[in-house]
Amino acid sequence: MPIRVTVWGENYHEQKNEHIRKIYPNGLHGAIAEGIKSHLGEEAEVRTATQDQDHHGLTDDILEQTDVMTWWGHVQHHLVDDAIVAKVYQRVLSGMGLIVLHSGHWSKIFVKLMGTTCALRWRDDDSETVFTVNPGHPIAHNVPPVFHIPEQEMYGEYFDIPQPDELVFLSSFKGGEVFRSGCCFTRGQGRIFFFSPGHETYPVYHQDEVKQIIANAVKWSYNPPKPRYATSTCVHSPLGWMSGSEQS
Amino acid sequence: MPIRVTVWGENYHEQKNEHIRKIYPNGLHGAIAEGIKSHLGEEAEVRTATQDQDHHGLTDDILEQTDVMTWWGHVQHHLVDDAIVAKVYQRVLSGMGLIVLHSGHWSKIFVKLMGTTCALRWRDDDSETVFTVNPGHPIAHNVPPVFHIPEQEMYGEYFDIPQPDELVFLSSFKGGEVFRSGCCFTRGQGRIFFFSPGHETYPVYHQDEVKQIIANAVKWSYNPPKPRYATSTCVHSPLGWMSGSEQS
Amino acid sequence: MPIRVTVWGENYHEQKNEHIRKIYPNGLHGAIAEGIKSHLGEEAEVRTATQDQDHHGLTDDILEQTDVMTWWGHVQHHLVDDAIVAKVYQRVLSGMGLIVLHSGHWSKIFVKLMGTTCALRWRDDDSETVFTVNPGHPIAHNVPPVFHIPEQEMYGEYFDIPQPDELVFLSSFKGGEVFRSGCCFTRGQGRIFFFSPGHETYPVYHQDEVKQIIANAVKWSYNPPKPRYATSTCVHSPLGWMSGSEQS
Amino acid sequence: MPIRVTVWGENYHEQKNEHIRKIYPNGLHGAIAEGIKSHLGEEAEVRTATQDQDHHGLTDDILEQTDVMTWWGHVQHHLVDDAIVAKVYQRVLSGMGLIVLHSGHWSKIFVKLMGTTCALRWRDDDSETVFTVNPGHPIAHNVPPVFHIPEQEMYGEYFDIPQPDELVFLSSFKGGEVFRSGCCFTRGQGRIFFFSPGHETYPVYHQDEVKQIIANAVKWSYNPPKPRYATSTCVHSPLGWMSGSEQS
Repeated sequence: MPIRVTVWGENYHEQKNEHIRKIYPNGLHGAIAEGIKSHLGEEAEVRTATQDQDHHGLTDDILEQTDVMTWWGHVQHHLVDDAIVAKVYQRVLSGMGLIVLHSGHWSKIFVKLMGTTCALRWRDDDSETVFTVNPGHPIAHNVPPVFHIPEQEMYGEYFDIPQPDELVFLSSFKGGEVFRSGCCFTRGQGRIFFFSPGHETYPVYHQDEVKQIIANAVKWSYNPPKPRYATSTCVHSPLGWMSGSEQS
Repeated sequence: MPIRVTVWGENYHEQKNEHIRKIYPNGLHGAIAEGIKSHLGEEAEVRTATQDQDHHGLTDDILEQTDVMTWWGHVQHHLVDDAIVAKVYQRVLSGMGLIVLHSGHWSKIFVKLMGTTCALRWRDDDSETVFTVNPGHPIAHNVPPVFHIPEQEMYGEYFDIPQPDELVFLSSFKGGEVFRSGCCFTRGQGRIFFFSPGHETYPVYHQDEVKQIIANAVKWSYNPPKPRYATSTCVHSPLGWMSGSEQS
Repeated sequence: MPIRVTVWGENYHEQKNEHIRKIYPNGLHGAIAEGIKSHLGEEAEVRTATQDQDHHGLTDDILEQTDVMTWWGHVQHHLVDDAIVAKVYQRVLSGMGLIVLHSGHWSKIFVKLMGTTCALRWRDDDSETVFTVNPGHPIAHNVPPVFHIPEQEMYGEYFDIPQPDELVFLSSFKGGEVFRSGCCFTRGQGRIFFFSPGHETYPVYHQDEVKQIIANAVKWSYNPPKPRYATSTCVHSPLGWMSGSEQS
Repeated sequence: MPIRVTVWGENYHEQKNEHIRKIYPNGLHGAIAEGIKSHLGEEAEVRTATQDQDHHGLTDDILEQTDVMTWWGHVQHHLVDDAIVAKVYQRVLSGMGLIVLHSGHWSKIFVKLMGTTCALRWRDDDSETVFTVNPGHPIAHNVPPVFHIPEQEMYGEYFDIPQPDELVFLSSFKGGEVFRSGCCFTRGQGRIFFFSPGHETYPVYHQDEVKQIIANAVKWSYNPPKPRYATSTCVHSPLGWMSGSEQS
């Protein structure tokens, strides 16, 4: 059974700005979706959803049928409906994988899952060098020890996140900044990967190493959907609960 | 300069229930405060604050003058003012230590900092055995490898928290359950310790090992207040920012 | 391409003791191998190797052709050839998965990879209850929230290991002890899982939950063999190394 | 009672090379010791020991009276006596703090404690920028968000260490490399800090930020010496062990 991926995009810059539309004629979400397909083929079933759609494209049905979601947003974070965020949050805790990309660091969903501000330093007009610091990690599979992104926004430390469960990539920039650019977290039964490369004014999502990493993260964050058990509320467990059917 | 500790308590059970009032004539917060004083002496300056006070006892002045806060709540979590929670949250991210005790696992502040539900299993009328699993950790200082709490509520796994940065104690219960009972987290500049022993109907906070652990956690989570730098918003950092005064 | 698994066994108790031979007529290694096959089918290609064979069954060829190794030893640890241990160690750092089972906690290879003594408490004649504390982890896939092992040796804390990168299972015992029974580590490019259930005098490796967990760990610790890059020596890297062919 | 610190040095370059002797007239160990004294004053009692002394300056008495050791070595690692390394290793597991500096990354003691090769990239003639990525950590106390080391050897990723329990500093270099330059580990009861800045041909140990960090690490890694309990061998624990005197 293929991994059911929903690539979520803000779909704002590419509608408003011709320069960006030229780089991403099918939207950033379109390029991200293509990258996943190019690496995973029949292993994944990829759809897209965007903020401007009804329910931001995330109806209950679609959420229920999503195994892994990628999230790209930037200037419209504040307009994302809290009720939708709450549903995505529940899906993550119930086992949906979540891949948060670039400026998604300041999305409501990421901030809520992290418990911190997720603030950072930034500057346009730079280039990024990405280093693998956990070469045996599944997300580093087929990724070189180091690769360059010729044009990229600078994201620099201090990045206000909890310590990642696993750190996979570190980046440096022309200005001398460093950044924890590939970070793994677990929340409830959901596995979350934050990956910082990717900016609307540069063709980052057309670069093969970036596609490879996002595809790897889809596989890593995927949890086969069944059997799952509820973990979201306190459970009174009288003596003997372990031998009965109340185990879940 | 002493560590300025604010022991926060719900102060509900001890007002409503005579049995509990007998165990904790000065309130649970009173006993927790006494335990810290008995171990830290002049190293700490301890005050208490309770939910029934104006601003839950947490005015801006008091918050600003608190280096470490302990938090005990149980059945009145939902009545804690969101605006106060938001202020405590900001203080933690700015470096205030936070020690969350027992049923505080379901407090608004802990859930917000964790990003998960913090749900668990529970049952009254049990006893707890606490094991040290990180014997060189400062919070384990002067704590035996194992100790018993004769009467205690059972808290059992699965406990829905992010993986702790450091795990210091594990507990078992008569029913065979296990629990991650001493967990360290960092959020922003604040260090957080969750410690599960402690229940309103048992004299847990009068037990010396428990006092020792809470006192150790006060020292561990303490951040000397200055100099600190802001980390809570994104900072545009033009080339050259590192050599100027904009470093903070 | 299937995962090439080598199940390594001490093969001592089952040769010397009829009671144990009745439980494990094909050796503990035989039972462990069967369990992996029963869950992974054609996804894995499983062979066994034992300490009494030439080179302990671990020739250079076999090591080179092993993607994941499981290790069970007990009373003959000291007789394992240091030169073989050194080769297994290099294979782990180069990306081979390693699953260390039960009394393998005191094997030369595990102690060398951990950097600690790996000592623990123990007692015969107990039973074990295993709790999942990371329910979204791949090694917990299809594993219930809690399960019992009716007869089992007690392994208790303090267990002298470095803090695991990820903690997946905790266990309790009739005597009230607790144990970190499922622990993930990374060393170099190799992923290591320690799983404590399993004793020669009890049919633990015939129990389905145990088989499922070991099979899950095989998949989790598997690194597709190519491309890999050397990480085992210091590399002089003159300016410009990143743009050349010296990246690896 | 002051923290008893032993600053251990290879004391080779400064004897052989006049340029280095001019930078470090009292040896690298002398400068490191001075830095600790300048920040900790009466809180620490600092002595030095060097490789060329009898027992490398590390007799049983001195080891027993050392609470925290700092380790700097470079080209003479292979000449350090294995028996002395074994004793230092036991002291770390028993609770002695260990601060491994710069080229000490390839010392026998660090490699043994890590369980990996500890290999890295390197190049002379660079400069280093150090970023704080865990601003609430005790080792970051009074350390600015970012600071420069004008002349420094480059140490770059991949650095073959286990994932640190806590990552405190990241560095970048002129060549665009990044490095995990401040890493915390726990082994047994001992707390270990690796800090990469510091090279024999540059006055790094005279720089105040570097002195501050090493002094902070001394305090962080310090374990009050008593009471301690043995954790280095397996302990048979019959039912009832918890209630008796055998707890330790």
